Amino acid sequence: MVEDGSPQLREVMAALVPYAGHAQVVGITGSPGVGKSTATNALVKELRRSGHRVGVLAVDPSSPFSGGALLGDRVRMQDHATDPGVYIRSMASRGHLGGLSWTTPQAMRVLDAAGCDVVIVETVGVGQSEVEIAGLADTTVVLMAPGLGDGIQAAKAGILEIADVYVVNKADRDGAEQVRRELRSAVALADRPEGSWKPPIVMAVAQSGRGLDELVEELDRHRGWLEQSGELTRRRTRRAREEIEAIAVAALREKWEDVSGAQQLGGDLDALAEAVVAGEKDPYAAADELVGTATG
Amino acid sequence: MVEDGSPQLREVMAALVPYAGHAQVVGITGSPGVGKSTATNALVKELRRSGHRVGVLAVDPSSPFSGGALLGDRVRMQDHATDPGVYIRSMASRGHLGGLSWTTPQAMRVLDAAGCDVVIVETVGVGQSEVEIAGLADTTVVLMAPGLGDGIQAAKAGILEIADVYVVNKADRDGAEQVRRELRSAVALADRPEGSWKPPIVMAVAQSGRGLDELVEELDRHRGWLEQSGELTRRRTRRAREEIEAIAVAALREKWEDVSGAQQLGGDLDALAEAVVAGEKDPYAAADELVGTATG
Repeated sequence: MVEDGSPQLREVMAALVPYAGHAQVVGITGSPGVGKSTATNALVKELRRSGHRVGVLAVDPSSPFSGGALLGDRVRMQDHATDPGVYIRSMASRGHLGGLSWTTPQAMRVLDAAGCDVVIVETVGVGQSEVEIAGLADTTVVLMAPGLGDGIQAAKAGILEIADVYVVNKADRDGAEQVRRELRSAVALADRPEGSWKPPIVMAVAQSGRGLDELVEELDRHRGWLEQSGELTRRRTRRAREEIEAIAVAALREKWEDVSGAQQLGGDLDALAEAVVAGEKDPYAAADELVGTATG
Repeated sequence: MVEDGSPQLREVMAALVPYAGHAQVVGITGSPGVGKSTATNALVKELRRSGHRVGVLAVDPSSPFSGGALLGDRVRMQDHATDPGVYIRSMASRGHLGGLSWTTPQAMRVLDAAGCDVVIVETVGVGQSEVEIAGLADTTVVLMAPGLGDGIQAAKAGILEIADVYVVNKADRDGAEQVRRELRSAVALADRPEGSWKPPIVMAVAQSGRGLDELVEELDRHRGWLEQSGELTRRRTRRAREEIEAIAVAALREKWEDVSGAQQLGGDLDALAEAVVAGEKDPYAAADELVGTATG
């Protein structure tokens, strides 16, 4: 129902809201090739060992085409296919107005209310939106690996500003120490207000499970800090604000369509767009006409 | 003015629209480490050699933090700093409602109307939105390089569906032939309707300029196909449609703020978000209140 945007979602969400808020939402992000799927899989295994119930959302914000992840990624997850304490779902998540929209927060709420202790949100694909994931998660894990030039890339993408926990994956390979050193100085150099969280760096080999116990410890420690500092409520309020805005915009769009007829609106918009391309109308005037039709 | 969202933009855009539509917008995308900046720089050089005027927009959709590209990238562009036939601008581009929003299309329009023959839009950073770039560009160039596991990554991201021209960069390195072979079979396997464009594969060494003449030829050939097939108008109409929608949504938001007071709106939204986090209100009811305040 969440993925289809069913009209009954409204009632479902209203029923679930009182039961949500227990799960820690962990976002996992990193450049292609760092081993995100393997790390997610290993993290699920480790969390299960300590008795946590786990939900995994593999979202693909880059592709409106494929509508989901490649089979290969999911096959690796088959380790957990028969475990009733693990729920895994691949979903395309691009909303009409771009971004992770509100499909992902709603799916998170379903898993949360259903009793998951941890909900992992993993982005799939190259065009991953690190910052959007950080906006959704309580705790953002940034994966690095040796040999990918990640030191520089991280600085480029502003990733250093969103990481709550770093994991240097493939820590048994050459260059892993170098990645750790670079991260360590980046963390040390960062301007951080008093009492704020200092992202730890976990060395791991996801393939063999090495370091995963330490990652789970750091996730727990971060959750403790989130609660004690008030940051948990701040992050979740921001998330709810964006969800409400997205729903409000969608509601307004529906109103337009009620006034002008759904087909009509699309038609008008096409005609307006064509006029802009032809140089006959500027986009502001076109938007005025669209809004005028809608609200007038 | 475009970057600041100046109120006078409206008039500026109205004045520019009749002069726009000449430039070919070329989007350049690819995984971290493929050499996007170097390739952009080499392409500018080659286009200048054939007398084209060139605009470059280096957009960073991933980072609301840094507000632009790292200095290093731009330093490489200094080759063209004194050339009046080249205009280069780094810009943050994340709109309030996410994505490249309408800052990038408007900046493209300025460069187009100012007489650029080619406007290159390059994404900076890891969290690049390949698909959004493809939505903005007339021609999308996808860069690959050996040693990055791009074959698999490309399939993952749906990149094969957005490429108009492939460039295998660092073609003098081991593995370049392998990348070409993989791409060639992917292109051969793709389901393509009669008369559609078959993406060529250009082997290049951006560092030395090798293969750049061939890239420019392929860009010309693609432009010819775009015009002759009607696809140019289709792509530009889609682009204009999204721009109009984004402006219309922003206009509606302003109306809300007029009704309820700008501060007021933010305050209400925060209170609503807090109620959702506390489990006291569902997001749909919250959105209703927000829209009600706004339109009622």
